[in-house]
Amino acid sequence: MMKNNIPYPIYFDSISEHLNAFLSEREFSKIVILTDTNTSEKCLPNLSMSIDRIANCDIIEIDAGEASKNIDICTGIWSMMNDFHMDRHSLLVNLGGGMVCDIGGFAASTYMRGISFIHIPTSLLAMVDASIGGKNAVDLNSLKNMIGTFAEPEAVFIAPEFLDTLPERERLSGYAEILKHGLICDAAYWETALGHMGMGNKAMLPIIERSVGIKSRIVAGDPEEAGPRKLLNFGHTVGHAIESFSLSNDANPLLHGEAIAIGMICEAYLSFKKNKLPETQLHRITMTLLDHYPVYAFGEEDFDSLIGLMR
Amino acid sequence: MMKNNIPYPIYFDSISEHLNAFLSEREFSKIVILTDTNTSEKCLPNLSMSIDRIANCDIIEIDAGEASKNIDICTGIWSMMNDFHMDRHSLLVNLGGGMVCDIGGFAASTYMRGISFIHIPTSLLAMVDASIGGKNAVDLNSLKNMIGTFAEPEAVFIAPEFLDTLPERERLSGYAEILKHGLICDAAYWETALGHMGMGNKAMLPIIERSVGIKSRIVAGDPEEAGPRKLLNFGHTVGHAIESFSLSNDANPLLHGEAIAIGMICEAYLSFKKNKLPETQLHRITMTLLDHYPVYAFGEEDFDSLIGLMR
Repeated sequence: MMKNNIPYPIYFDSISEHLNAFLSEREFSKIVILTDTNTSEKCLPNLSMSIDRIANCDIIEIDAGEASKNIDICTGIWSMMNDFHMDRHSLLVNLGGGMVCDIGGFAASTYMRGISFIHIPTSLLAMVDASIGGKNAVDLNSLKNMIGTFAEPEAVFIAPEFLDTLPERERLSGYAEILKHGLICDAAYWETALGHMGMGNKAMLPIIERSVGIKSRIVAGDPEEAGPRKLLNFGHTVGHAIESFSLSNDANPLLHGEAIAIGMICEAYLSFKKNKLPETQLHRITMTLLDHYPVYAFGEEDFDSLIGLMR
Repeated sequence: MMKNNIPYPIYFDSISEHLNAFLSEREFSKIVILTDTNTSEKCLPNLSMSIDRIANCDIIEIDAGEASKNIDICTGIWSMMNDFHMDRHSLLVNLGGGMVCDIGGFAASTYMRGISFIHIPTSLLAMVDASIGGKNAVDLNSLKNMIGTFAEPEAVFIAPEFLDTLPERERLSGYAEILKHGLICDAAYWETALGHMGMGNKAMLPIIERSVGIKSRIVAGDPEEAGPRKLLNFGHTVGHAIESFSLSNDANPLLHGEAIAIGMICEAYLSFKKNKLPETQLHRITMTLLDHYPVYAFGEEDFDSLIGLMR
């Protein structure tokens, strides 16, 4: 268990042991698992095999992909929670990437005005970002995270073995948030993180712990984003707009981290323009990100809609 | 302003003075009013005449009636909030009865993960109940208040003159909650409240203040309903089920307070059966409530669905 400054435990590795202990300690009237079509196939069987209580749970499965993170799908989740007779003393287990953690946290924190939930993040992005910090949300049409709550999970369980189920593109997307953590508060960590990019998932544990530590520290000082937490938004004002734009325009839209990588380049450029970032650093950031992340092209005719999305 | 134990002010009477002062003190980026088709006709013109800032606001109007308290209407409210460019520093003014306060509180407390809102309750029920205590919710299909948040308004403004706009049936419905306050914690107040039932709206102010005081005190000791706040649910387990049943079966469904009056009779009977309430008191409660509230008939074939709703 990690010692952090946020008021719930984050467990690393040995997931079946930690989860078994957690579920034995607490008496939940009912446990229901929220998965998506990917994690129910690739992650749930593993958990069910090693944890009896998970094997016997009711399951809510939603389609994988960011497009599921909307209020209609959430209404479906609420209805199933009710069909499964969940009450105020029940637990929702969010097993999935950022999308599942975000919508599951929102569904649980508003069902009967809020019931307990835990996150078991299965993507790198969810491990170092979405599962930490108590932000839950769904999108409103193409507007990212417009509807949501601040509500904390009872615990987070991080199991690096789930990274083996991820396509390389998803892993890289998550890595963008790790690089962001380096950029916003620790130049040495940015170098360490770059050095680990090509390594296997086993070697990722210290990097994940470090990133979780950085995010936890920032969040603990400002849980409702009155000020310092905004640091974590680096790359996100531009990045979210590009992500929304791509989601509504492309057959194969950008992943979150890919959009954030582009956003970080744009915002680093703005920072350079305001004389806050030296040109050499802008150059290094830009070159490094372009090396790993795709270029995305806009026409002049798209500017208005992008600026609208940024607002 | 009322001295109470809850962390936001409740202003009685002289609404334009108090509201003007409140809006001048705080710098909101945008103020939007949520009304329903009744209050936009009967209450808003009055406010707009005396308060400049209200006169210039954007307005979101929803259909009057409990049936509007659902997630689809809420999605419409969120979209309009976004269309009106509301941001985290904006204010939603809920001008209406319990339905408007409940859905408006939920919409505001989840828009961008929560923005400021105030309640201006226009029905007796909303003045003494829905606007106090930080519970916000919408219904899920026919299940009352299944989806919601605990989130407190910045302030509540209670203006008894709005009671003049209410049909007598609505006023009586609200009175059921006042009688409940007497039953759950103050026998003398039950008698006082009964004595005021036939009086005009001007004479209601001390009764409203007293009921708000009782509810505030209970809520302040237990904001998230871990224990003592459940006292306020007297009549509501049975009453909510009957209200839901009526809402989906009747062309002219029971009002909330009418259903709660029936619920109080049923729950008082249970209390008598468990030897916790003397027969004379059961008799007095039953006769008094039957004197003022309608009888509602069920067939044996309805028992299953009622019991399902109670669960």
